[in-house]
Amino acid sequence: MSKNFDCGIPYTLVFPDINIEGKRVLLQLPDGMKQFALAIANCIRENYKAEPIIHMESIYGACDLQYNQIFNIINPDLIIHIAHSEYPEYLASPLALPSNLRDRVVFVRALSKLDIDENMIEKSLSILDTYNVKNLSIALTAQHTHLYNKILNIIGNNSKYNIIKSNGLSPYYDPGQIIGCDFRTVINKNIDGYIFVGGGEFHPLGLYLSTLKPIAQIDLYSNTVRDFTQIGIKYYKKRLFVISKAMEARHWGVIIGLKTGQYRPSLLNMIIKMLNKKEYVLLTSENMSELNLLSIDNDWFDAFVITSCPRIPIDDLMDYKKPVLTPGEAYMALTGKIDKYIFPW
Amino acid sequence: MSKNFDCGIPYTLVFPDINIEGKRVLLQLPDGMKQFALAIANCIRENYKAEPIIHMESIYGACDLQYNQIFNIINPDLIIHIAHSEYPEYLASPLALPSNLRDRVVFVRALSKLDIDENMIEKSLSILDTYNVKNLSIALTAQHTHLYNKILNIIGNNSKYNIIKSNGLSPYYDPGQIIGCDFRTVINKNIDGYIFVGGGEFHPLGLYLSTLKPIAQIDLYSNTVRDFTQIGIKYYKKRLFVISKAMEARHWGVIIGLKTGQYRPSLLNMIIKMLNKKEYVLLTSENMSELNLLSIDNDWFDAFVITSCPRIPIDDLMDYKKPVLTPGEAYMALTGKIDKYIFPW
Repeated sequence: MSKNFDCGIPYTLVFPDINIEGKRVLLQLPDGMKQFALAIANCIRENYKAEPIIHMESIYGACDLQYNQIFNIINPDLIIHIAHSEYPEYLASPLALPSNLRDRVVFVRALSKLDIDENMIEKSLSILDTYNVKNLSIALTAQHTHLYNKILNIIGNNSKYNIIKSNGLSPYYDPGQIIGCDFRTVINKNIDGYIFVGGGEFHPLGLYLSTLKPIAQIDLYSNTVRDFTQIGIKYYKKRLFVISKAMEARHWGVIIGLKTGQYRPSLLNMIIKMLNKKEYVLLTSENMSELNLLSIDNDWFDAFVITSCPRIPIDDLMDYKKPVLTPGEAYMALTGKIDKYIFPW
Repeated sequence: MSKNFDCGIPYTLVFPDINIEGKRVLLQLPDGMKQFALAIANCIRENYKAEPIIHMESIYGACDLQYNQIFNIINPDLIIHIAHSEYPEYLASPLALPSNLRDRVVFVRALSKLDIDENMIEKSLSILDTYNVKNLSIALTAQHTHLYNKILNIIGNNSKYNIIKSNGLSPYYDPGQIIGCDFRTVINKNIDGYIFVGGGEFHPLGLYLSTLKPIAQIDLYSNTVRDFTQIGIKYYKKRLFVISKAMEARHWGVIIGLKTGQYRPSLLNMIIKMLNKKEYVLLTSENMSELNLLSIDNDWFDAFVITSCPRIPIDDLMDYKKPVLTPGEAYMALTGKIDKYIFPW
């Protein structure tokens, strides 16, 4: 039986039925929830008599458990990983969470206490109307998936729309749930557009680049509804421009990410094979930033491809002075097949 | 027999007699030398038929080999670690480089080709004269230690000064060599002041905080000689102010660094024991920045102590809105013994 905790924060934490009592636990949180780290640590201490250590580093998902450092250095009994879904093995990193460590990582869901109302859904439908969307689907971040049925019921009353339902992808995702690099619960060629529930630009941008379909975003944190489509188009055009620049590149930097769940040797090997008539240098880094890249960049390099997380080139290195591509984008640039944008490889 | 390589860069690289031929090697460089990464990679490829992968991440010393990530994820045959000296085990991190990995890390010296001249030494002596220094010592970074004897000979002609010689600390350090957190080759109560040869503020600041003695800095990169003493005093006063603020702190954050060679469990335990009448929360991170700290910081915290690298509080978090202390500084704040500044614990 899972246990729900309130902890005095705007999320309900759902702890699975794992023995935490008296253990030494490392607490991981997405950056947006780190403000609640101390409250959650106290909550764990009180409810489980456990000894929490708060992980301050940015943790980008279940692909980024940093278990090599953690278990080698401070060696807690458990990692308590809050708010990100477990890493689906089909995403192809063999190192995301090795089986011998599986019992030492606890994935705790964080369900936002914010509710959705009919008015927000109506606003989002009227945004989708401007794109003449009839067949729509609902996409949500992990914090909001418990609202899926409520939204379904509200729209269900309106015969104007045909809802393409999602079954989720057990045990990883709830119906309609998306993560930053995996949108398959809501990918279906019959869908014309999306109602997306979640904050910020990160998730809806991924959804847009994966589908190129209109998106109405309901952001419960800021209590706003907006058309995300134009933002998505802006980024999409920028990506096409970056790819077109990379088509002329002769000298490539191939960057291997040093995050366990982002290591994708099959993609790395594919890219290296495709570069057989070009020159390339292998580069590696756990963290990547413009500064990082600038430190080794010189006239020789014409373009870079990052074989780990597909969000790094798009979210962090979009404005770098040279093209920095995802593997899918590098495939487009190297084959010249630019009619279909490939994401989120 | 070691081999010297030129590689067309302003350093001579001294490769120890280790078999690199045909191997897959990861190349690590300090940030200041990353601009030569591609040249060195080509040099290794040509001379050893080896396959180099360039590590882009900031590498702060032999305390920071990042071997957990590297050997678990890309698993090269060797790490080639350039320009930093091997980690002395007496610095008390049991995890800096485990014996089973010892043969897989090659420490390559990088000797600057820049030479020193008599005029620079005269200038530095006249700076030390203003502090009435008679008994002086020579401190150098690893890139310049081959100049030690030349400097010794030039000053040796001047009977006005008594040079306190350094024997180095074999196999780790050459005579007079200092690193960012270890100055014992030139620590001697009879020394009145130092001629320091090296660039930037990082090394002379460490030397100043360890000794509180006058320092004349010869920077061969910028071809300048300056009195570093006043810069050192400015930082020293700031540190005393930060310590005095922390003396009132009731709620502490104790930060455990997730870098292998910076894990110092004995110091961590000492700090925790000293906090027995205060409240504290354990925090951890591999990388630390103001943003990092801000993300978890709230009204509860009064002060932080970082038990890993003593340079992080001083070089990276000096201007944080709350005191962030080294273990030695936390000892001062918690015991009230502020008459003697403790560095570089």
